[in-house]
Amino acid sequence: MKVGFIGLGNMGLPMAKNLLAAGYDIYGKNRSSKKEETFAKEGGKTGMSIEQMAQNLDVILTCLPLPEDVEKVYFSKEGLLENGHEGLILVDHSTVAPELNQKIATAAAKKGIEFLDAPISGGNFGAEDGTLTIMTGGKKEVFNRVKPLFDVMGENIYHIGDTGSGSVVKLLNNLMVSFHTQATSEAIALGKRMGVDTDLIFEILNASYAQSRIFERHYQNFIAKEDYTAGFAIKLLHKDMRIAEQMAKNANMELPIGSQLTSRLKEAMDNNLSEQDMSALYLLMNKNTE
Amino acid sequence: MKVGFIGLGNMGLPMAKNLLAAGYDIYGKNRSSKKEETFAKEGGKTGMSIEQMAQNLDVILTCLPLPEDVEKVYFSKEGLLENGHEGLILVDHSTVAPELNQKIATAAAKKGIEFLDAPISGGNFGAEDGTLTIMTGGKKEVFNRVKPLFDVMGENIYHIGDTGSGSVVKLLNNLMVSFHTQATSEAIALGKRMGVDTDLIFEILNASYAQSRIFERHYQNFIAKEDYTAGFAIKLLHKDMRIAEQMAKNANMELPIGSQLTSRLKEAMDNNLSEQDMSALYLLMNKNTE
Repeated sequence: MKVGFIGLGNMGLPMAKNLLAAGYDIYGKNRSSKKEETFAKEGGKTGMSIEQMAQNLDVILTCLPLPEDVEKVYFSKEGLLENGHEGLILVDHSTVAPELNQKIATAAAKKGIEFLDAPISGGNFGAEDGTLTIMTGGKKEVFNRVKPLFDVMGENIYHIGDTGSGSVVKLLNNLMVSFHTQATSEAIALGKRMGVDTDLIFEILNASYAQSRIFERHYQNFIAKEDYTAGFAIKLLHKDMRIAEQMAKNANMELPIGSQLTSRLKEAMDNNLSEQDMSALYLLMNKNTE
Repeated sequence: MKVGFIGLGNMGLPMAKNLLAAGYDIYGKNRSSKKEETFAKEGGKTGMSIEQMAQNLDVILTCLPLPEDVEKVYFSKEGLLENGHEGLILVDHSTVAPELNQKIATAAAKKGIEFLDAPISGGNFGAEDGTLTIMTGGKKEVFNRVKPLFDVMGENIYHIGDTGSGSVVKLLNNLMVSFHTQATSEAIALGKRMGVDTDLIFEILNASYAQSRIFERHYQNFIAKEDYTAGFAIKLLHKDMRIAEQMAKNANMELPIGSQLTSRLKEAMDNNLSEQDMSALYLLMNKNTE
């Protein structure tokens, strides 16, 4: 099985590396060449265009930051759908709207190409450790064929339902992540203001009903270290929240507090925190109180 | 050691029962006599007035629903402070403002009475299983003397700092609980609306970064069962959020999303959900979308 991996970023690179380590031949492609070089040093194959990949490989995984990037890689003249051969399997690990997944699946079906939406959760830690959660929408039979690849990259592998259902669940995940991020921010900021040691607050609340995986992640890896430079950028969480809001709107539903969190993330972006890890919402809290 | 327990409610009764089961002599007191009868059937002693308890016992634990109840039990003419003897230890497990704890501690000190604020987290499940988190403020030496009692009722026992510090951390806990409750509500409601099986959503998200102890509690024990009759009443969480907001305000700090959640809980109360478990915020979500 010849496998391509397009998008060797924060998530894609460690995922592709894990596939290499498991013995797969992986053909990598990235917009900037620096990541491709790193990938080549690990034994990955590089140098194929997207067009060539679509013509020659059996499975192509994509992991791209923005919906615009997905549109381009799938729908441009030099892209995957225009050039893909019958029987090709395309898997998108990016976080986009279920509508975009459905648009790709429809176009793919016309050419005998298979498509799965398979967004991921677990962050770059999970990508490196091969412990990602992978949420898949599309045909079960196609899912079964690529599951060996998923098993290398992730720990909790799910087939949810029809095309787009992977994206639905991923967007719900990030909606909850936004809530938990702001919960962490307000509690730690208020506790600090009240003069209680924040390490102790974390220890106690993490043993109580306030516990969440995001609280653990944000406090231990970022807030306690006062370093927000790695991780999942605020601008990406904001992008996902906008997609989730639009999905709710299309379903004629409001997200009363979720919408406030989208605004909060936008405020963080307006305060030069776009590129910081999402846990840096905490800094905005402190800013409001100084 | 002769121990009193005032407030044999949802939390207090199972806590007092666990102390009985551990071999302590416990003198119970409750506003309504029905809970006292249940307590007596388990071997608890009843019939003492609060005045008599204050005069004759060594340690008195209180676990009351509202700050007004705490004010009355501690400060009324027939209450604990007026009638307490030198050396008496008073422990309040109720959730109130740190300012009220400090007011009690000051009045107690004048009579040679010791006081600890020791609010609890873990819900009625934790109270029954003896797995509560107990967050204590006050003198470490006094904490050490009552810790054997705490060890019976709880699993994670903390001495945090000065009087009121237990309440600070408890209020932070309930602030985060409110966030996690609304996160659960919006995610499950939106997922259901998108046509994805909610059991599967729960299973996947609980294995992902969306995980929280509240998500587990709310989904498994209430939402999936469509039964919100037991547990922690929305009106009590609303009361705690108002105390947390006031604490933040006194510290010259805003809770930008926390304040929205207080309003949300008020909206639930206005929709006849006051007595329902806090997880019933989910019902308000459905109401908004029908």
